Amino acid sequence: MTTSLPQDEPLSRDAFTEALFAVGERQYHDLHPFHKLLHGGKLAKGQVQAWALNRFYYQVSIPRKDLTIMSRMDDPALRRVWLQRVLDHDGLGPDGQVEEGRVGGIERWLRLTDGLGLDRDYVRSLEGILPATRFAVDAYVHFVLDHTLLEAVASSLTELFAPAIHRERIAGFEQNYAFANDSTLSYFRKRLEEAPRDVDFGLAYVLDNARTAEQQRQCIRALRFKTELLWAQLDALHHAYVSPGLIPPGAFVPDDMTPTRYTR
Amino acid sequence: MTTSLPQDEPLSRDAFTEALFAVGERQYHDLHPFHKLLHGGKLAKGQVQAWALNRFYYQVSIPRKDLTIMSRMDDPALRRVWLQRVLDHDGLGPDGQVEEGRVGGIERWLRLTDGLGLDRDYVRSLEGILPATRFAVDAYVHFVLDHTLLEAVASSLTELFAPAIHRERIAGFEQNYAFANDSTLSYFRKRLEEAPRDVDFGLAYVLDNARTAEQQRQCIRALRFKTELLWAQLDALHHAYVSPGLIPPGAFVPDDMTPTRYTR
Repeated sequence: MTTSLPQDEPLSRDAFTEALFAVGERQYHDLHPFHKLLHGGKLAKGQVQAWALNRFYYQVSIPRKDLTIMSRMDDPALRRVWLQRVLDHDGLGPDGQVEEGRVGGIERWLRLTDGLGLDRDYVRSLEGILPATRFAVDAYVHFVLDHTLLEAVASSLTELFAPAIHRERIAGFEQNYAFANDSTLSYFRKRLEEAPRDVDFGLAYVLDNARTAEQQRQCIRALRFKTELLWAQLDALHHAYVSPGLIPPGAFVPDDMTPTRYTR
Repeated sequence: MTTSLPQDEPLSRDAFTEALFAVGERQYHDLHPFHKLLHGGKLAKGQVQAWALNRFYYQVSIPRKDLTIMSRMDDPALRRVWLQRVLDHDGLGPDGQVEEGRVGGIERWLRLTDGLGLDRDYVRSLEGILPATRFAVDAYVHFVLDHTLLEAVASSLTELFAPAIHRERIAGFEQNYAFANDSTLSYFRKRLEEAPRDVDFGLAYVLDNARTAEQQRQCIRALRFKTELLWAQLDALHHAYVSPGLIPPGAFVPDDMTPTRYTR
């Protein structure tokens, strides 16, 4: 399935919506072999650790991305809506000091890395992440600063496709991994509530504000860019920890893997 | 070999120089399996095309990186020296309109992609490059804007290690590939003249200006960052075009490779 781009005339609301969904059909990272292995229970613990460790950098960067977007909004009403995303990730207080529903996504992700036996200080230090993870995630933060507000909002629309992958992940983890429990799965369960609300707003904003063919093309490209950076993160994980398993110098080495030595 | 970082006291000039070289010993991309395959004549034409196509984005971005560095320099004398790097890449006129020695590095790189049978318009469009290439290269341009001038200069010191890889590449290409000739190798031969001059200046600048232990640590980290972004580019090429050969959706597909189809 190829993604059609509007030419001279803007697409109708329905056709534009379809073109946005077509991006996900074609290249959302649920199609990536790494996710198939992850959800199918085919990964060793160390490989799941590497995924959770690297993905943590994405989690901590999302509020920076959303605050960058907010810093470009003129309308207080719009900022009030978008702020919810930051609060969802940051939470209203640390674990144990607020009621369970108000714990943030970053803390919930740390429960996952806890459950996988990773040290919190090590995870937070970001020392072991793949450089490619950093480059891809930072590209997202830079993108929303360097492009129009409309494109920045459009880049968030991968959340259209997220609930399906979260449901698949929860089911796959429960079925296949000993570390799956209420604590380690808490991030994904919470996102099932949050993502649809976020994306309803984001999609309506994009459909309302992309009025010209050029703006529609920009939105489709922005969404494609976002799928590319999600995909690139899995490519890097797959390369380092699955096949051929070449961990770059300095990156996390799981206990159950022997790293290739790069020597002269 | 691990890279030692200075603690409280700054390292001596010699020890600091050694610490910078140790970064290259440990993780310069000449150690990457992809380069071993490339220089050893083990790659098919399509794989070499993919490398040259992706590396073209690095080539066209280097002047943007150097101009970003220059935009942060207060000293006209320093800017005059650094400008030579931009002129080396941009050249003093297009191919055929200036004497051979004044043709720029970007044009010379296009002679390589010409020799590999890639269409110039396609190469210049950047349409087929791996997203990971874009993220890694853009990270370099952002780095020199976001860090101190000293760190920006230090990040250029991978040129300490470049002449060896260029010599190895020229010899390996001449021995192993039918496309090797004066035109396709012209970029690398020219860099053998230019890089030592550039790096003599850069190294002296870093040694003279990194006076505290903290500044020395920053310089070593900056050089490490640079080796990481070079390495990440080869990781992405290796993953997409060598092993396991998973080309991300939308990226260049060589004629002699059948892409994996990511379908639902």
